[in-house]
Amino acid sequence: MADRSERSGVEILCVGTELLLGNILNGNARWLSEELATLGLPHFRQTVVGDNRDRLIALVQEIAQRSRVLIVTGGLGPTPDDLTTEAIAAAFSVPLEERVDVWSDIQEKARSRGRTPSPETRRQALLPVGAEVLWNPTGTAPGMIWTPVPGFSVLTFPGVPSEMKAMWKATAVPWFRSSGLSKGVFVSRLLHFWGIGESTLAEQVADLLEGVNPTVAPYAGRGEVKLRITACADVSSKAWVLVDQIEQELRQRTGNLCFGVDEDSLASVVLKRLGQTGQTLSVAESCTGGGLGAELTAVPGASSVMLGGVISYSNAVKRDLLSVPEDLLTQHGAVSAQVAEAMALGVRRLTGSDWALSITGIAGPDGGTPEKPVGLVFVGVAGPDGCSTEMLRLGPTRGREWIRIVSAGEVLNRLRLRLMVND
Amino acid sequence: MADRSERSGVEILCVGTELLLGNILNGNARWLSEELATLGLPHFRQTVVGDNRDRLIALVQEIAQRSRVLIVTGGLGPTPDDLTTEAIAAAFSVPLEERVDVWSDIQEKARSRGRTPSPETRRQALLPVGAEVLWNPTGTAPGMIWTPVPGFSVLTFPGVPSEMKAMWKATAVPWFRSSGLSKGVFVSRLLHFWGIGESTLAEQVADLLEGVNPTVAPYAGRGEVKLRITACADVSSKAWVLVDQIEQELRQRTGNLCFGVDEDSLASVVLKRLGQTGQTLSVAESCTGGGLGAELTAVPGASSVMLGGVISYSNAVKRDLLSVPEDLLTQHGAVSAQVAEAMALGVRRLTGSDWALSITGIAGPDGGTPEKPVGLVFVGVAGPDGCSTEMLRLGPTRGREWIRIVSAGEVLNRLRLRLMVND
Repeated sequence: MADRSERSGVEILCVGTELLLGNILNGNARWLSEELATLGLPHFRQTVVGDNRDRLIALVQEIAQRSRVLIVTGGLGPTPDDLTTEAIAAAFSVPLEERVDVWSDIQEKARSRGRTPSPETRRQALLPVGAEVLWNPTGTAPGMIWTPVPGFSVLTFPGVPSEMKAMWKATAVPWFRSSGLSKGVFVSRLLHFWGIGESTLAEQVADLLEGVNPTVAPYAGRGEVKLRITACADVSSKAWVLVDQIEQELRQRTGNLCFGVDEDSLASVVLKRLGQTGQTLSVAESCTGGGLGAELTAVPGASSVMLGGVISYSNAVKRDLLSVPEDLLTQHGAVSAQVAEAMALGVRRLTGSDWALSITGIAGPDGGTPEKPVGLVFVGVAGPDGCSTEMLRLGPTRGREWIRIVSAGEVLNRLRLRLMVND
Repeated sequence: MADRSERSGVEILCVGTELLLGNILNGNARWLSEELATLGLPHFRQTVVGDNRDRLIALVQEIAQRSRVLIVTGGLGPTPDDLTTEAIAAAFSVPLEERVDVWSDIQEKARSRGRTPSPETRRQALLPVGAEVLWNPTGTAPGMIWTPVPGFSVLTFPGVPSEMKAMWKATAVPWFRSSGLSKGVFVSRLLHFWGIGESTLAEQVADLLEGVNPTVAPYAGRGEVKLRITACADVSSKAWVLVDQIEQELRQRTGNLCFGVDEDSLASVVLKRLGQTGQTLSVAESCTGGGLGAELTAVPGASSVMLGGVISYSNAVKRDLLSVPEDLLTQHGAVSAQVAEAMALGVRRLTGSDWALSITGIAGPDGGTPEKPVGLVFVGVAGPDGCSTEMLRLGPTRGREWIRIVSAGEVLNRLRLRLMVND
């Protein structure tokens, strides 16, 4: 904990009862957090509080004791529950005064929309004595930059995301850059892994997770694990060198488990690789019911590689469309390596694609048996050099959606590995 | 501000450096806020803090002085930066002890996935002496319910949303209901609407949005709008009567725009209705690439209705698998009412289903032309009484994913309305 006699860091305070009621997602906090990280500003805490004057005053006083800068969003509008400016002034016992230029600006904006400003909007021209106006280029509610006590500054923004962002870029960023608070430039890169659990990966790179610059932090997704590398230097080129070095080290240790960086997905990586060699892809899906196709076609430009496929949810569709032999279905069951293979070969033949993927399994919650429990999935990858299948035991506990998503990831990853071998 | 000698209310604390870096949106805080509102629990503050032991300890001590209950999410995993349990124990100077039953559960879950639990996962079996285990039905990290000092309790949950939600429903809700913190019994019902915008719906029911008991609050989803009705009474039966009355009023005003309640989705509603009459369904998807099939098969038990379908992403697949005539494709283009109709009729014939849905459109970001801009989508519904198609203009601004999701919703809603007429 920061010594309260010595303020440090930037805090975010989002004001709005709608946040406490869960009516809206706090996208402002996320956006501001990313901006602070990019500016290299230390940021240790975020708070959400409702439109309540007393609680706001107490919270601002509390934050003023431990932080250097407070960024407040929300509560700057014209309605009676907009209390932010008034509460901040009261927290330091400073009176409000009307700013003539702000009131002119409000009237001007109303007029340009053919309206008369309502008397309520005039409240928005009130700022604490000594505060600087943080102009709002689009809306009527201005913000402020104010240093009510030495060593502590507060910046206010409306809760409307587009207004907040415009004001941030225009005024707050230059203010922070000149404030001397930013300790260099921060850059970061995300590495994506498939085929390893979060804890096992963390073990393999335990020493790197202890690093200070760059830092390496693990995140778990659905079947996927990510490592974020963040580095700081006086200029971005030097910071990227630090990131590159750690990335190289991480890739050396983890081999082909790392499948991409930043915005990459298994689908985008596989599509890109196929596209480079002019090859095409199709899918045959049973338990995923279209989810694999949806993931592939979520990637813009997928149509140059992805031809389509068959959702063979029923046995009749497996048989009639994909030509899966009836005796395979009766002898081994729809959830079997044999049927996965026949599905992949069938859709490849049908579409004429170079590669084909298949998935058949028991996603649950019902339909499991002792021999074929929920979470049992077979995937197939058919290509110019033949078809391989694999059995996955994903277990019943994480539910239907998880089984479907991980199945799709598993078969995409197998294709990715096959394509690497073919290189 | 609450008097510090008298604790009141519930606070949420989300732990994770990824939140402070803006890597992820704080969806957990929003979800928990909604739940607290539904339970009628007073909730005044939310905080986000990083994976930092000292700051966590100080914050927990601070909250223990002002609040009755603290809900913590995140930092329960097996990696070294997962510090939540340890820090909370340290905040009250209570030692950790290994829970034999938790360690057994972790080993059991690993075994069911064919893995050996890594030594790091054993850390997750450590809980403060005196804490109760809050079991995790899906993942390995358990939470806890602990009253370290009289009048203050802390509940911990993993940051993984699906795990947190399952644990919340199974254990936390009953605990809160029996805690006496809730002022009366709150019950709530969510109504789902399709085919109307949030602001238009809000206008139509403006007087009801002003109500105090029940309250009615609008939420916008992707293409969907929801109204949550929440009522309070001394017993739940009385509260439900209040909810029922408002629901009736809302349905009267909005006609067939309301498609379901609570966990219903367009897909589940359509599948249920078809299932009741023993009818079957198939799909032919171009721009959604499997997303419609995935939505339908996300519903457990879909297999009794949904036979499957064809992902006809390329024109060749439209022609060869769905028998869309070549001259339709050349004359009208793949994105046309004619091709949507031929796709729906083709997949219905192919699978022998009673009903068939088709989608063909331009999801962007590329591929738009002045005549056929991004966001232009045609959908088809083929059934025993013929095929109807419709043109949607979804616009380019909200992006590829939004266009795909709304297209799937639109065609499902059209089938829903057709089935209502047939009743």
